[in-house]
Amino acid sequence: MSRETDDPKTPATVTDELKSTLAAALVEDEDEDLEDLALGEDYALTPEFVAMVVDAADRADAERLRELLDALHPADVADLMGFLSPDYREAVLAHVDPEALAEIISELDTEIREDVLDAVAPATLAKALEELDSDDAADVVDDLEADKRAQVLAAMPEVERVAIETSLAYEDETAGRLMQREVVAAPQFWTVGQTIDHVRKDGDELPELFFDIYVVDPSFKPVGAVPVSLLLRTKRDTPLAQIMEPVTEIAVDLDQEEVAYIFDKYHLISAPVVEPGGRLVGQITVDDIVGVIHEESEEDILALAGVSDAGRNADVMDMIKSRLPWLLINTLTAALAVSVIKAFEDEIEKVVTLAVLMPIVASLGGNAGTQSLAVAVRALASRELSAVNALRTIGREMWVGLMNGTALALITGLAVYLLFLDLRLAIAFGIALIINLFVAALAGVLAPLMLDRMGRDPAVSSSVFVTFVTDFTGFFAFLGLAALILL
Amino acid sequence: MSRETDDPKTPATVTDELKSTLAAALVEDEDEDLEDLALGEDYALTPEFVAMVVDAADRADAERLRELLDALHPADVADLMGFLSPDYREAVLAHVDPEALAEIISELDTEIREDVLDAVAPATLAKALEELDSDDAADVVDDLEADKRAQVLAAMPEVERVAIETSLAYEDETAGRLMQREVVAAPQFWTVGQTIDHVRKDGDELPELFFDIYVVDPSFKPVGAVPVSLLLRTKRDTPLAQIMEPVTEIAVDLDQEEVAYIFDKYHLISAPVVEPGGRLVGQITVDDIVGVIHEESEEDILALAGVSDAGRNADVMDMIKSRLPWLLINTLTAALAVSVIKAFEDEIEKVVTLAVLMPIVASLGGNAGTQSLAVAVRALASRELSAVNALRTIGREMWVGLMNGTALALITGLAVYLLFLDLRLAIAFGIALIINLFVAALAGVLAPLMLDRMGRDPAVSSSVFVTFVTDFTGFFAFLGLAALILL
Repeated sequence: MSRETDDPKTPATVTDELKSTLAAALVEDEDEDLEDLALGEDYALTPEFVAMVVDAADRADAERLRELLDALHPADVADLMGFLSPDYREAVLAHVDPEALAEIISELDTEIREDVLDAVAPATLAKALEELDSDDAADVVDDLEADKRAQVLAAMPEVERVAIETSLAYEDETAGRLMQREVVAAPQFWTVGQTIDHVRKDGDELPELFFDIYVVDPSFKPVGAVPVSLLLRTKRDTPLAQIMEPVTEIAVDLDQEEVAYIFDKYHLISAPVVEPGGRLVGQITVDDIVGVIHEESEEDILALAGVSDAGRNADVMDMIKSRLPWLLINTLTAALAVSVIKAFEDEIEKVVTLAVLMPIVASLGGNAGTQSLAVAVRALASRELSAVNALRTIGREMWVGLMNGTALALITGLAVYLLFLDLRLAIAFGIALIINLFVAALAGVLAPLMLDRMGRDPAVSSSVFVTFVTDFTGFFAFLGLAALILL
Repeated sequence: MSRETDDPKTPATVTDELKSTLAAALVEDEDEDLEDLALGEDYALTPEFVAMVVDAADRADAERLRELLDALHPADVADLMGFLSPDYREAVLAHVDPEALAEIISELDTEIREDVLDAVAPATLAKALEELDSDDAADVVDDLEADKRAQVLAAMPEVERVAIETSLAYEDETAGRLMQREVVAAPQFWTVGQTIDHVRKDGDELPELFFDIYVVDPSFKPVGAVPVSLLLRTKRDTPLAQIMEPVTEIAVDLDQEEVAYIFDKYHLISAPVVEPGGRLVGQITVDDIVGVIHEESEEDILALAGVSDAGRNADVMDMIKSRLPWLLINTLTAALAVSVIKAFEDEIEKVVTLAVLMPIVASLGGNAGTQSLAVAVRALASRELSAVNALRTIGREMWVGLMNGTALALITGLAVYLLFLDLRLAIAFGIALIINLFVAALAGVLAPLMLDRMGRDPAVSSSVFVTFVTDFTGFFAFLGLAALILL
């Protein structure tokens, strides 16, 4: 992290240098200490550091606040915002450099960002946004309320404003929104030397960081890519056309989940984004994709657990809004499932043990269904489950359900027999378990497959369906068999 | 994807050129057709294409097979292996170029890879592995059985063998295993020009692709990094020390999940890996991290669903092994939970409706617990939930549980009253629901927090605990209250 600036070529100034080095070392040491203090072993901000920030803000100690913030990466300042109440956030942000502000804002979670954006003047914001790549800037502008958005855009230079407006014209969660418009493109007849000279000369208009140079034909369609490291190691007189590699083009309207899949599958670092006609309009880089992968897998986990559009850092009302609807739907399906029990009230009155055992059949079915559901949802996401092997996968799941059901039926059936000394009860219990685990495995793979075929997200609403099916089947199979065998 | 090779500088040969362009276009068209056929809209292999491969293999049509395989990226050939039975896999692999073999093998899932590796001669394998970066090669060697591993390593050149053995000496799922030993390092007193000349001259020993040049001090400790694109755009006489950026070092024994977190947080493209003493020993690039993120989020989803060490592409026995143990544990906890019902058998015999309603209380508690569990597990993974805000998060969850419980209690309590015309039953049901949703929210956040504090994976075994707590509480609260109020 430290930048050493010793220069072995100037021994004459050794005393002066030694002094300044010592001073620098002292300053550096203190910085290092704060940096060490800031992040714990798990790279999360430590409670001690957050307390120091709160304390400095309470004392309105501007110098100390600045010192503390200087020890943090913008991403860590963004994390810090998540731990502070709105008042403290404003106090802290007042001491952030204008250049750092843009980066911090672009790192913030949506909920906090809306809050922070309210507190920043439009002119300051416009200035900060100019520092960002067009995709990140558009992302921030998207979170502004209508009138503030107009003010901020009006305060920006033409070029940046158009870039942001163009980006926002693409649908959310598509390649168009992920991409940055800044790319390095070169005609295919250029040599390595010409390309390097171009980059040196027009550096200001190019993206700050880039990993591939896209080789384009006269109609600006990408025909190949040259990784920057390859450009660096190739002789200057070599034509680009000779060293370029094939590129994987991303359609501008492609869903971000598909984009992430392509990056992962082909190990891409960057990829050109093209309009329907094939013209190069921007590029997506892998650092944006890492965020998408996190987002999408988080969506899957939360959707499977019945949490919609989970507000991270959300307040209690947002949390309720993201959970209550699914609980209400679950209430309805639960009511439907227990209507089966109601139909067997007479039998339960006669043999109360049925009421004790029936939740086990339903619950194990639910667990088994969740297992095959989770496996199927992940396999669909990674394309390991597709039209090619859907039937085979369904067949395997049915076998697994049957075998696990039989194993459980033997073990628990024996336990039921030993506890209640009723062979017929044990048999009804065992057979119901086999039936329910078979149905669970089948429902767990069929539900996401059908949703996927219908073009819906297989993770959303699959769980509710599977739980309903296994509850219903569990109660019906057990109570029905018991009614047949016992009474 | 197509590489055009028209050269505007040679108009004299236009007729010849036209002919060859036409011929190339025809060939290209056929290639393009196969490529279009191979992948569906979702970038998965199409059933038609897989059928064509199977058909060509059946007819032992080597030329057709080669043509089909040529249309695929190595990653797609690896996917194809996943859809084929072992016999077909061997038939297909026989027609793969030695150079492509290494890449295909490194893309294969572990289960299939072990299978495929068995079928490849040690000498062929040794040759193929030389084509890979040290991390990918080590990954493959790790999957070989002991005696074959010895044979393959013996057949490799000294340098590659040592690199692989060193890599394998690091623990699985650590930075040491993820990193490649090939890096570009430069002393801090070098200029941009000297660095570029070095890369041009010693290109063969450098990694094939690289994104950052690490600036090192005399003891080979990294003191900064220069992105290749920055090197390219900077004047040749600029010293590296002047343009280098601070680096985030990765300790060689850091867990891969932490490494992924750091890459995501700081948007890294590559990072230097250092030994305990601080010496540079390798680098990790973001394309490896994308795979880790996928792996880790998949592990979380499957662990939450009670699937252990999920064999992807596994056979039925592996699937059973990954699921039956958790089902057995669930059986035990379910038995424990229903023992509560057994204690209230007399009450149920008197009011059978209790048996109908009790699963709803338990099931809604389970759903609510799963919701807060999923949110907590994701928040822990992204460090949004940490020691700083654990108490506040627990408090919020308790509020959410209380409010959602109250909302559900009012709605369903009314429904119960209207259905059974029994106010006391409706009240017992409603209060039990509030209690259970409160306990569910609390258990859902406490279980993963405590596991995390104990240094365990919060996703594993949390679900079983939460389900048990909500089942037990649901049955006990409802039946207990009913016994108090009704009887």
